[in-house]
Amino acid sequence: MSETPATRERSEEAAPAPPLGLSEALVLEVKEALAAAAADLAAGLCAPLHPADLADLLEQLDAEERVGLVRALGEQLPADTLGYLDSEVRAALVAELGPEAAARIVARLETDDAVDLLSDLDPALQRAILQALPLSERAFVEQGLAFPEYSAGRLMQREFVALPDYWTVGQAIDFLRAHEDLPDDFYELFIVDVRFRPVGAVPLSRLVRSKREVPLRSLTMKQLHLVPADMDQEQVAFLFKQYGLVSAPVVSPEGRLLGMITVDDVVDVIDEEAEDDLLKLGGVSETDVFASPLATARRRVPWLLVSMISATLGATVIDTFGASIEKLVALAVLMPISAALGGNAGVQTLAVVVRALAVKELTRANAWKVLGKELAVGALNGTAIMVVAFALTLVWFGLLDLAIVFSLSILCTITIAALIGVTVPLLLDRFGFDPAIASSVFVTPTIDAIGFFTFLSLATFWLL
Amino acid sequence: MSETPATRERSEEAAPAPPLGLSEALVLEVKEALAAAAADLAAGLCAPLHPADLADLLEQLDAEERVGLVRALGEQLPADTLGYLDSEVRAALVAELGPEAAARIVARLETDDAVDLLSDLDPALQRAILQALPLSERAFVEQGLAFPEYSAGRLMQREFVALPDYWTVGQAIDFLRAHEDLPDDFYELFIVDVRFRPVGAVPLSRLVRSKREVPLRSLTMKQLHLVPADMDQEQVAFLFKQYGLVSAPVVSPEGRLLGMITVDDVVDVIDEEAEDDLLKLGGVSETDVFASPLATARRRVPWLLVSMISATLGATVIDTFGASIEKLVALAVLMPISAALGGNAGVQTLAVVVRALAVKELTRANAWKVLGKELAVGALNGTAIMVVAFALTLVWFGLLDLAIVFSLSILCTITIAALIGVTVPLLLDRFGFDPAIASSVFVTPTIDAIGFFTFLSLATFWLL
Repeated sequence: MSETPATRERSEEAAPAPPLGLSEALVLEVKEALAAAAADLAAGLCAPLHPADLADLLEQLDAEERVGLVRALGEQLPADTLGYLDSEVRAALVAELGPEAAARIVARLETDDAVDLLSDLDPALQRAILQALPLSERAFVEQGLAFPEYSAGRLMQREFVALPDYWTVGQAIDFLRAHEDLPDDFYELFIVDVRFRPVGAVPLSRLVRSKREVPLRSLTMKQLHLVPADMDQEQVAFLFKQYGLVSAPVVSPEGRLLGMITVDDVVDVIDEEAEDDLLKLGGVSETDVFASPLATARRRVPWLLVSMISATLGATVIDTFGASIEKLVALAVLMPISAALGGNAGVQTLAVVVRALAVKELTRANAWKVLGKELAVGALNGTAIMVVAFALTLVWFGLLDLAIVFSLSILCTITIAALIGVTVPLLLDRFGFDPAIASSVFVTPTIDAIGFFTFLSLATFWLL
Repeated sequence: MSETPATRERSEEAAPAPPLGLSEALVLEVKEALAAAAADLAAGLCAPLHPADLADLLEQLDAEERVGLVRALGEQLPADTLGYLDSEVRAALVAELGPEAAARIVARLETDDAVDLLSDLDPALQRAILQALPLSERAFVEQGLAFPEYSAGRLMQREFVALPDYWTVGQAIDFLRAHEDLPDDFYELFIVDVRFRPVGAVPLSRLVRSKREVPLRSLTMKQLHLVPADMDQEQVAFLFKQYGLVSAPVVSPEGRLLGMITVDDVVDVIDEEAEDDLLKLGGVSETDVFASPLATARRRVPWLLVSMISATLGATVIDTFGASIEKLVALAVLMPISAALGGNAGVQTLAVVVRALAVKELTRANAWKVLGKELAVGALNGTAIMVVAFALTLVWFGLLDLAIVFSLSILCTITIAALIGVTVPLLLDRFGFDPAIASSVFVTPTIDAIGFFTFLSLATFWLL
């Protein structure tokens, strides 16, 4: 067959480097066009963008620019774009669009995206949009919203393919060819029994490789990973990661098939959970690049208050030894070095332990082993740093006794930091708290206080 | 059709809660069996495990237990298990097994897993295993190893399905049914031109829904995301996340199709990259739960040394104001509170900025806006904390002037912390460094030193 024009066009498209997300130059161009009140030009620039890139572009704009561009795009705005938007930006934009326009977009989304979008809105707007939805869509979305936040029920889409296990490959393919209202993307067929309980799954790659007369039953996979609708999304993400799944059936408490979770939604969850650990370790509860300064400040200030209260522990220790510091001011000079070293050693251990708990590399079976190892690492590095600290103090202050006392206290502090860095997250995890909140806000001040006490008490009884 | 025994068995299996990874009780049972020299019993306990769970179990064992169990499992050990193992544990285990046994396992792996396994071994062992591989497999693996570490070439498998675009759906299905040596899992067919350059992809869900006579050409997706073989894995992960891909074609510099990357490999990369940011922010370069104490200590000690050197900056500031501290020891008592607050405010900003840069929410287009916002947040929270700090100091020391000086310096420190927390990672990113290394090791000591200077100089000129 000769090459058609369509083919040639595609092979030419394939040549340039692939688009790696949104270009910053385009954002600046669009902003300029909007500033020059040329909203149509801006909309034209956005037309070829993938919905995910268009969402990124909208996030980069100011609130007024954003509304201007969305109005200019009108019906050209792909519904998917809203699914990709940051939730703060999206809520503001939907409020701006009004319930009818928003409902028209929501109706075109898959259930999981529609539920996600509505869950962030304030109750009045949420109700208004629900009422403007077609009835069938509305029922699915309301059911989705009834599941707890961060549960599998919120992640699942109601669009999936379920077939009885006595069908053959040929019957399945004929069914798929005949039906229009199937999900956009699916990777396996769920096989259900007479009570609509999943008993197997057939990957499409096995379906297409099998002869028409083969019964589906003989193609079902060995092990089916069922997801209860109330399972936490973190556990769902673990299942997908652990077993390399691309989709999984979600079931009711009675075991009936309710929906399907696909890997692209789980990738977002994995990303969010990783973000969560990172931000908690940094003393922030949520990502907030697009939140207002006041909202952001309000979310972060409790961490600072806790930090202030816990820091008074170290301050109290110093206060107790005030007389020693008055006699030898070098003690006050060396304290921040002790605090920095203890804090860093503690956070090193903490970061590794939080991560190991998250990926289940650290469990009850090897907790003592890990503790022993971290103590050994603390002692080794404590010894190495002790030597440097000794030399530094001796050169700086020329006092041999002070150098001995300071370097010994550094060894103790770094070893104790390892102990605290392991035990605090382990205990939090054991008692059902999130180990990531054992962050610098709690661990560092404790290590600081112990470090100050070790140094100042040794100094007081040895030197003064 | 009546219910067959096979069906009934499966529906009963569907009832219990799904296995959520490895149970800790099983690990303890296996350890007991191994301790009692009942290796066969231990192997029996492991037989029903998914390869991913078996890998987790092996990680939890001591080195001798591990070798004992692997020997007892013998040919029962699924090849995949090695793909799931932590690289340190795996390298030790492969060395123990010897090149011939290892080569038999490697030959059963897909190219990406085989390349990953071999890349961690020492050169002599790697060569020995390569020589023991079948020739065709060996060529693919050697080509994989020739790509740079962390590149798309290392992630891709050589097993994929590529068809000419003038074929019909019927021809494609007949081809798939006739060929045995296809990949285990695939989600789309790549459509190639006469030079084997990808010009489109047909998701299997579209293939099975289309009639036999439809040409593949008319089913190809709008936009194809080509991955050059030398693309960094972080960018590959970004492509998959951004566009919700399940697989993507990898191409040579000439645009020829070389291999396929699937989403399960990318999920691992996303996880690793998130881990990387978390650990770097904690001052650790790699996860090291399974490394020896000496190896771990050696990796972490440079961060401690840097931390020590940078902490002398703050110490020098204190030394300069030694005379003031001798006169008013309350200054030394309050310093750690200033350091804790400045440090926490800085790391809060840092964590948000590092994350926003990683997910491209922060770009050149909105950098100034984010800086302005973070400064506003710093000023707001600085003011709130200033009030608390004023009250605390007044109650503790009963000195109004001291309370004024300390609370003012807290306001300055928190605002400056926001400035540093934004600008340092932005500058590192602009000049091509990893913003996550702008961690506590660099940012906190700078903020500490500035905080100490503000407080002590204000105190010296106002109070003394």
